[in-house]
Amino acid sequence: MKISVKVPATTANLGPGFDCLGMALPIYNTITIEETVLPGTGVEINVLNDDSTNDDLLMEHIPMDENSIIYKAVELLYNSIGQTPSELKITVQSQIPIAKGLGSSASVIVGGLIAANELLGHPADEVALLSIATEVEGHPDNVTPAIVGGLVLTSLEDDGRVVYRKLEWPEEWSITVCVPDYELLTDISRSVLPKEVAREDAVFNAKRLAMFVQAVNTKDDELMRLALQDRLHQPYRMKLVPGLDSIIENLKHEENVLGCVLSGAGPSIVIISKKNDIEKIKTIVKNTWEAQNVKVNIMTLPIEKNGAQIINHE
Amino acid sequence: MKISVKVPATTANLGPGFDCLGMALPIYNTITIEETVLPGTGVEINVLNDDSTNDDLLMEHIPMDENSIIYKAVELLYNSIGQTPSELKITVQSQIPIAKGLGSSASVIVGGLIAANELLGHPADEVALLSIATEVEGHPDNVTPAIVGGLVLTSLEDDGRVVYRKLEWPEEWSITVCVPDYELLTDISRSVLPKEVAREDAVFNAKRLAMFVQAVNTKDDELMRLALQDRLHQPYRMKLVPGLDSIIENLKHEENVLGCVLSGAGPSIVIISKKNDIEKIKTIVKNTWEAQNVKVNIMTLPIEKNGAQIINHE
Repeated sequence: MKISVKVPATTANLGPGFDCLGMALPIYNTITIEETVLPGTGVEINVLNDDSTNDDLLMEHIPMDENSIIYKAVELLYNSIGQTPSELKITVQSQIPIAKGLGSSASVIVGGLIAANELLGHPADEVALLSIATEVEGHPDNVTPAIVGGLVLTSLEDDGRVVYRKLEWPEEWSITVCVPDYELLTDISRSVLPKEVAREDAVFNAKRLAMFVQAVNTKDDELMRLALQDRLHQPYRMKLVPGLDSIIENLKHEENVLGCVLSGAGPSIVIISKKNDIEKIKTIVKNTWEAQNVKVNIMTLPIEKNGAQIINHE
Repeated sequence: MKISVKVPATTANLGPGFDCLGMALPIYNTITIEETVLPGTGVEINVLNDDSTNDDLLMEHIPMDENSIIYKAVELLYNSIGQTPSELKITVQSQIPIAKGLGSSASVIVGGLIAANELLGHPADEVALLSIATEVEGHPDNVTPAIVGGLVLTSLEDDGRVVYRKLEWPEEWSITVCVPDYELLTDISRSVLPKEVAREDAVFNAKRLAMFVQAVNTKDDELMRLALQDRLHQPYRMKLVPGLDSIIENLKHEENVLGCVLSGAGPSIVIISKKNDIEKIKTIVKNTWEAQNVKVNIMTLPIEKNGAQIINHE
């Protein structure tokens, strides 16, 4: 049997929603799991990268052995029904940029899990898949939208269950994803975060996240502009993302821009705006980063409403 | 001229919404401002308490001189148009329990302000009234619903402006207010809060507050049950509110209870529930507190959709 699963990229946090907001985007990795015929061949993982420039990086982050996050995810699923994986050939066809804050690791975890679950005849339901994926990834804000699509508010509860709700993204708002030509590993980007924060920063973020949810529910531009601020992670990560402060500064007076936030742990940034002046916004980002010798790939994308999908089952 | 303003009680925080969520309730203080005829009589403030048992307490918290919070509020309004108040007789007719976490101080600030504004011919609009009231009270979560009514998400922004949005409270949910027979001053209840909190507690609260807003928008019982939790103030205030931990414990298995939270800085508590079994819930609270020798007044109240209203203008 051979199963292929297409999994969307995701942007997490979206400003105030550290570790609990995430959104699926129409860039995809395809994960294929094939049962090999020869016993004793073990698990083999191959990566085919559509963008040859970051092939080495992909190899580095998805090591070709049983320690890889894909293998961990697949193994946890097999273990949950008292089995261990063997004689599997796993192939990742990658379009999602690696180590850019766009959920590449979540996508391979989710793709591996869903393909293996199909192979095994669906022992795991969505709740179980969300729990396993979150266990491997460490937080649910990328894996949840990768599995269910759309914009989600998601939470890992004390009992290991992942609870989520989909929010309806207003069609009036554009999402512009800006991917610079340098990488930032999530582990490094997490290591700069302090364990304690000022109570007033905690209150600040709670309020902003509440504003975000209300603004999305009511398509409220003014509220969204206030909502897209953060004091829990972005100020600490600013120094790891050269150019971000200048971009925020240079976009400050653009009246159509509602906010400019880090995508996940960075270094990509996401600009939320009204649908006017997108080209002008892109030019500002491009010029600002290029002035600092950073090349950037800028894409205005619709939200991906669907999560991971099985696209082939032979 | 003689102006009377009726101002609702308010319950703030509602669990995760520390300093930014508040709701108006149908218990009222009436604040009357009268221009006295004799020049040089100054500002006189009198308090008439409908509940004679806490008359002394009211006197204590609303001192009968120009230092009172009512006077401060009225003075700030006069100052904003280059005047100083003089020859005013201010009367507070009080029904809102004092020092119980039900917004009694916010109500007199708001009532004084709105009456004075009427007396002066409306120099201040709603934005200005919200700013002055918040300046006197220190935070906007009681004064905002006292002015505009309903359930509000409110924020004091860096520029001194108070931004708020009304949320639609689902009619399916009951609000039961339980007022114990002891007092707790907000200053004391604030003094136990730490200046720093764990980052994970900050993330916890932001997520809960976001869940609260989403649950209210979509009438989602399951989400509301998860939302009504807090790690920013309630754990620290628990020891100042004897009985609260037992009440939470005893209500834990009531399936109609969505949550049990401190009202403002306490000691009153608010129980959010579905509309079934209200009498059973009341009995549990009554028995739990009475077992600790605390008498309690329990009221199931609708939300007050209107804010402060001018009820007399002679």
